[in-house]
Amino acid sequence: MSEVHAARRSRLRARCSPAGGSVAALVSLPANVRYLAGSVPEGAVLLVGPSGEDVLLGHWDHGGDPAGPLPAEDQGLRIAPLGGEADPAVAAAELAAEGGADTLAVEEHHLTVARHRAVAAGAVGVRLVDLECAVERQRLVKDEEEIAALRVAAEITDRALGELLESILVGRTERHLALELERRLVDHGADGPAFPTSVATGSHSGLAGHRPTDRRVEEGDFLTVCLGARFRGYRCRIGRTFVIGTSPDDWQIELYEVVFAAQRAAREALTPGAEYAAVDRAARDVLDAAGHGTALGPVTGRGVGLEIGEDPRLSPAAMGRLGPCVPVTVEPGVHLPGRGGVRIDDTLVVRSPADGGPELLTITTKELLAL
Amino acid sequence: MSEVHAARRSRLRARCSPAGGSVAALVSLPANVRYLAGSVPEGAVLLVGPSGEDVLLGHWDHGGDPAGPLPAEDQGLRIAPLGGEADPAVAAAELAAEGGADTLAVEEHHLTVARHRAVAAGAVGVRLVDLECAVERQRLVKDEEEIAALRVAAEITDRALGELLESILVGRTERHLALELERRLVDHGADGPAFPTSVATGSHSGLAGHRPTDRRVEEGDFLTVCLGARFRGYRCRIGRTFVIGTSPDDWQIELYEVVFAAQRAAREALTPGAEYAAVDRAARDVLDAAGHGTALGPVTGRGVGLEIGEDPRLSPAAMGRLGPCVPVTVEPGVHLPGRGGVRIDDTLVVRSPADGGPELLTITTKELLAL
Repeated sequence: MSEVHAARRSRLRARCSPAGGSVAALVSLPANVRYLAGSVPEGAVLLVGPSGEDVLLGHWDHGGDPAGPLPAEDQGLRIAPLGGEADPAVAAAELAAEGGADTLAVEEHHLTVARHRAVAAGAVGVRLVDLECAVERQRLVKDEEEIAALRVAAEITDRALGELLESILVGRTERHLALELERRLVDHGADGPAFPTSVATGSHSGLAGHRPTDRRVEEGDFLTVCLGARFRGYRCRIGRTFVIGTSPDDWQIELYEVVFAAQRAAREALTPGAEYAAVDRAARDVLDAAGHGTALGPVTGRGVGLEIGEDPRLSPAAMGRLGPCVPVTVEPGVHLPGRGGVRIDDTLVVRSPADGGPELLTITTKELLAL
Repeated sequence: MSEVHAARRSRLRARCSPAGGSVAALVSLPANVRYLAGSVPEGAVLLVGPSGEDVLLGHWDHGGDPAGPLPAEDQGLRIAPLGGEADPAVAAAELAAEGGADTLAVEEHHLTVARHRAVAAGAVGVRLVDLECAVERQRLVKDEEEIAALRVAAEITDRALGELLESILVGRTERHLALELERRLVDHGADGPAFPTSVATGSHSGLAGHRPTDRRVEEGDFLTVCLGARFRGYRCRIGRTFVIGTSPDDWQIELYEVVFAAQRAAREALTPGAEYAAVDRAARDVLDAAGHGTALGPVTGRGVGLEIGEDPRLSPAAMGRLGPCVPVTVEPGVHLPGRGGVRIDDTLVVRSPADGGPELLTITTKELLAL
């Protein structure tokens, strides 16, 4: 992988010093550091120098977990373990100053005001500028290796969910179902859950990001489950809603059909060149027509990769167009206060019609199952 | 609880406007918001006004989980639900400007540079200053209700660990043992784990914050387990190291005795008025004398409460003295690369000798058990 990381750092370097100036980049956002340097200890930062020698600074010592093998020192990446309680970002700023960089681009959307102040104090004689979301923009389109990791994450997730559906659910609490799902994710090879597993029954069903409670599954409930596996750092998401017991009520069937239609409309809108807002609108229009528009959250879907909610945002205000090889979720939901609701989430990769259209990674059935 | 929260906000108000000026405080750090307003949705912020009307801003709508009952609107706390994707911090800044505050104190150690810029743009005609860690300082000394929650968290943690010790461990992976411990925490009433449970066997044992792997427990291993329950938001920590099999090796017994002596020395140093650095030194001196000083991490213990690693820090560079009713961890560890190591972590509350000395919350035995 280290060649891949070196190539990614070269692209960032070219972006920072297009004219071959001496702009160094200080990358501190964990997912960005991982993207450019591989698996690193918590809190490690990456200094991408203008000249081509990059430095990874962090705390490997003090019996801290090296978090897997250190990145290869070849490919122009030097490892600089820090002692004591030194802030790796400040140490990187000092290093950039010693290295003679005239400008240091930092991630102002990640560094706190207090930390930025300490970095500025360390970068003596260096001008600080905003790196903005340069690395996030680089991460937007995934290579086939990244998509392969997402595919495995989705397979693990489908398997864990499938096993749950074969077990007895009535009488078990949301908390326990969530824990069992997370155990099954790990059983099947996940690093861990991609995000806190959400299990919502009865009046909780359909809530976005519902935190599992001690409420028990009852006959006639809607049951909404949202989970995802993390595999080699890559995170996917699936959400499904089921009915507990034999025959769903009419309102449950109607609501499910509306959300399903909205979710399908958004999935079908996922083509290269489609505006982010247009994908959102595809789902929103269906729900509006059914009188549920206001129940939809601000976002119909998000990008996924090393983070579960990364760019793009599929929302009314979002600017931009989808490109091929961009993995996104499509996750509309409607919650009726006091009654419950429906969420249907999938993870897909945008592909051109010539390549067969959007690639569905989470393949668990979306028919309304009565469990 | 709302009276308690109102009283806490009044103390913060008095701290911000001692001369009765018109300084509003914008609290954004989640643990600080929870401390001052109770359980709130993720991302909610609190505006503490100079005049006594406080406002809690966040996203309750869009099928988002209200995260438990809304805080009472009485006690001078108004709830302001936001729509769309509005940043609650920016909305609070605008509100402060409309309210005629001349100064807004923000948490510069929490707001990112980019977010601080958006807050400044919203706070038209208002001077932004640094609230610093005013709320964290208020949180340092716990009231009896907070300590009672920590006591329950510790009871749950001891029970979950005790059950694990009665089960068969050989052949099971670090990942599975960690997941089982987290399930048991929830079984016994925890909101969830206080931090990611760490299970480290063999050459991993004694590593700080080791992330569980697929390594299986083997005869003769050291097994280090660090876990804690979260109860009503309050987090505790326990760490224990065991030997797998019948009789520990001599090096294991010697290393365990050294770490145990260091941990006991630091526990015994926990008295009101003791310098943070002196508590750290008590443990460090024992390890230094045994030639393991360099293996000790930068911190011997941390405060616990709504966060697992809050003030104070018990480290060589820490300034300050312990007060009564301050809960802290004492968690020295030594890891010998390639061989393994020992960690022994407890959560205690500082009490005066007249009150019986330090109150040990995590009571699982610290003898070297052979499992």
